[in-house]
Amino acid sequence: MMSVTDPVENLQALIRCPSVTPEEGGALTALEAMLAPLGFAVTRMTASGDGTPDVENLYARLGADGPHLMFAGHTDVVPPGDAASWTHPPFAAEIADGMLYGRGAVDMKGGIACFVAALARFIGENGKPPASVSLLITGDEEGPGINGTDKLLHWAKARGERWDAALVGEPTNPDALGDMIKVGRRGSLTGRLTVIGIQGHVAYPHLADNPLRTMTGMLDALMGKPLDEGTDLFPPTNLEVTSVDTGNAATNVIPEKTTATFNIRFNDLWSEETLKAEILDRLGHAARTGGKDTTRFTVEWLGRVSPVFLTRDEQLAGSLSEAIAAVTGKTPQLSTTGGTSDARFIKDYCPVVEFGLVGQTMHKVDERVAVVDLEKLTEIYRHFIERWFALAAAC
Amino acid sequence: MMSVTDPVENLQALIRCPSVTPEEGGALTALEAMLAPLGFAVTRMTASGDGTPDVENLYARLGADGPHLMFAGHTDVVPPGDAASWTHPPFAAEIADGMLYGRGAVDMKGGIACFVAALARFIGENGKPPASVSLLITGDEEGPGINGTDKLLHWAKARGERWDAALVGEPTNPDALGDMIKVGRRGSLTGRLTVIGIQGHVAYPHLADNPLRTMTGMLDALMGKPLDEGTDLFPPTNLEVTSVDTGNAATNVIPEKTTATFNIRFNDLWSEETLKAEILDRLGHAARTGGKDTTRFTVEWLGRVSPVFLTRDEQLAGSLSEAIAAVTGKTPQLSTTGGTSDARFIKDYCPVVEFGLVGQTMHKVDERVAVVDLEKLTEIYRHFIERWFALAAAC
Repeated sequence: MMSVTDPVENLQALIRCPSVTPEEGGALTALEAMLAPLGFAVTRMTASGDGTPDVENLYARLGADGPHLMFAGHTDVVPPGDAASWTHPPFAAEIADGMLYGRGAVDMKGGIACFVAALARFIGENGKPPASVSLLITGDEEGPGINGTDKLLHWAKARGERWDAALVGEPTNPDALGDMIKVGRRGSLTGRLTVIGIQGHVAYPHLADNPLRTMTGMLDALMGKPLDEGTDLFPPTNLEVTSVDTGNAATNVIPEKTTATFNIRFNDLWSEETLKAEILDRLGHAARTGGKDTTRFTVEWLGRVSPVFLTRDEQLAGSLSEAIAAVTGKTPQLSTTGGTSDARFIKDYCPVVEFGLVGQTMHKVDERVAVVDLEKLTEIYRHFIERWFALAAAC
Repeated sequence: MMSVTDPVENLQALIRCPSVTPEEGGALTALEAMLAPLGFAVTRMTASGDGTPDVENLYARLGADGPHLMFAGHTDVVPPGDAASWTHPPFAAEIADGMLYGRGAVDMKGGIACFVAALARFIGENGKPPASVSLLITGDEEGPGINGTDKLLHWAKARGERWDAALVGEPTNPDALGDMIKVGRRGSLTGRLTVIGIQGHVAYPHLADNPLRTMTGMLDALMGKPLDEGTDLFPPTNLEVTSVDTGNAATNVIPEKTTATFNIRFNDLWSEETLKAEILDRLGHAARTGGKDTTRFTVEWLGRVSPVFLTRDEQLAGSLSEAIAAVTGKTPQLSTTGGTSDARFIKDYCPVVEFGLVGQTMHKVDERVAVVDLEKLTEIYRHFIERWFALAAAC
């Protein structure tokens, strides 16, 4: 039986598989080779069969009944960019000065490597867990996210799989291991505003209606006044205008129309409906303040709205916090900051929290992880598994 | 000798030459055929010789000395657009219900047709003028304006030509013949503002600096507060932002930079220098109000600045106003409104005013002129020639 108790060896094996999204690159095969000897039943979902075209996914379960813990993550990584800019080659997994270099080191092959090592240590000490543990690993987190976790959950549920809690191993710590557990996420809403005026010559502005005058007031209405001041567990709702585009190359012509695209990350004070109403209200007020009867505007809502969510599960977050405190001496912050993750899909199936490595180098050249952090995270995960199963068994 | 005392016949001959800029289309040849029998010395400047590549121009002088009056204009016309949309074909010069239809009817073959008829009538009654009169006609007014009036003036000056006054025959009347003489023009200044922030993910706005926040304040600083309230003979200085462009297609990314292009039409309260200083001052203030130390901005001034000008020549404007009053019973407004014209070049050689037909249909489908207006404008021009030469002779 292969020894997988060392997270450094596990991570080196995974990094050496160039699984740039959407390529499998050997990473899921390497993971399968670690899990099967531990007794996991491993299922691979590929383009050829099970409804996840273009990408490969993996679902592995140990145990057939009892409380069921899911560990979720992804083996795909973002492209390395210019490999020549790296101090160490992005897929070589070289160690220098206590740091392990490679694409995916923290986002998030490192998290998977530690969880596998933690499980192996747990099993080595305690034998098989008293109930069930599964790994739900996708190759489509850094890509479109359509054929990954979302479909994998559907597929598993259809097979009768049910979970009691989930841990996502994404890098959650801003500065040091133990800083932060993520227990929810703001929602995300994207819109495109079009303001329509009347085209004309700049020398005759009274015969035209410049939509950029109205747009200026609308940009201020959108970004000038905060939407709220945040809540106990959520930061303030924030709106960023990401692009304003007129595309008028004639400098002596007042344009007919202009657009602005904006994204809102919103907290639990808002629903999709109340937020859209607030935006339209602000824009309508700005249009009336502009005072031109001829100005019209429309808002198109783009893509799928990510709803806000918050996990309130004392057994899950409590076990994890205790494990972190036991290994690092720190009390992690329970946070809902940052961008979306696959936890937005998992939350519809069971309570979910996120905890992994330090994210500072993710998506950058010279992505790397401290070897000492890999050992610490493995111990945190091992403590967490022990505690969670102990509490679950007691229920 | 061809009779050219009828402006309607003159105009029909010119409209039937399809001189869509930069094509000569036979229009200058037709004009030469009208002028030569009146005794004019006609010089054609063409691509083949005299320094006006790509377009043809015409300079014609009657008389060799004494006070010298210039009539300036152009025979090129803007494209007709969809000829099928016209009630009468754009180059057929058909008359219906007292209206003469055709591209260039008012802008400005009509003005030329009337001036030639006025001269022919003056000569028919008085013999040759007591001094000199010239026609300076370009085929490059509706195009880039590089090889037209500007070069023609240089060329003529180099040959020893000097003028005492000029009349441009562009359509100047908003509603009815006699409404408005143009005695100057606002200046024009164009700039492109670039605001540079820090790119980042919308979920982490504290790590980024959205240049569109600063841009919003800058747009308001540029357009929100009037630059002045106008002067006796000039309308208020006006700034229009003509395009804002970010070009960021990623709705989850805060952009690094964004641009805004603006044009200012300014009056005699400003010079190029004071106006640029005011704009930079407003932008600098908006940047400081924005409060982000990381934000930077630059302004690039585009193209050539058109300076403001005002013609103060009582003999010129007075003769023209009296002629208009004699024919129409109206006292024309002396105006500096509207877009630039070739008068901006002529003003550097002699005093210049503009008066022609009613501009409502210029550049549109079914461009047309009332036949009665052609007769009236011819009489206005004839009265003006008489008065101006009488006053010039008395000096």
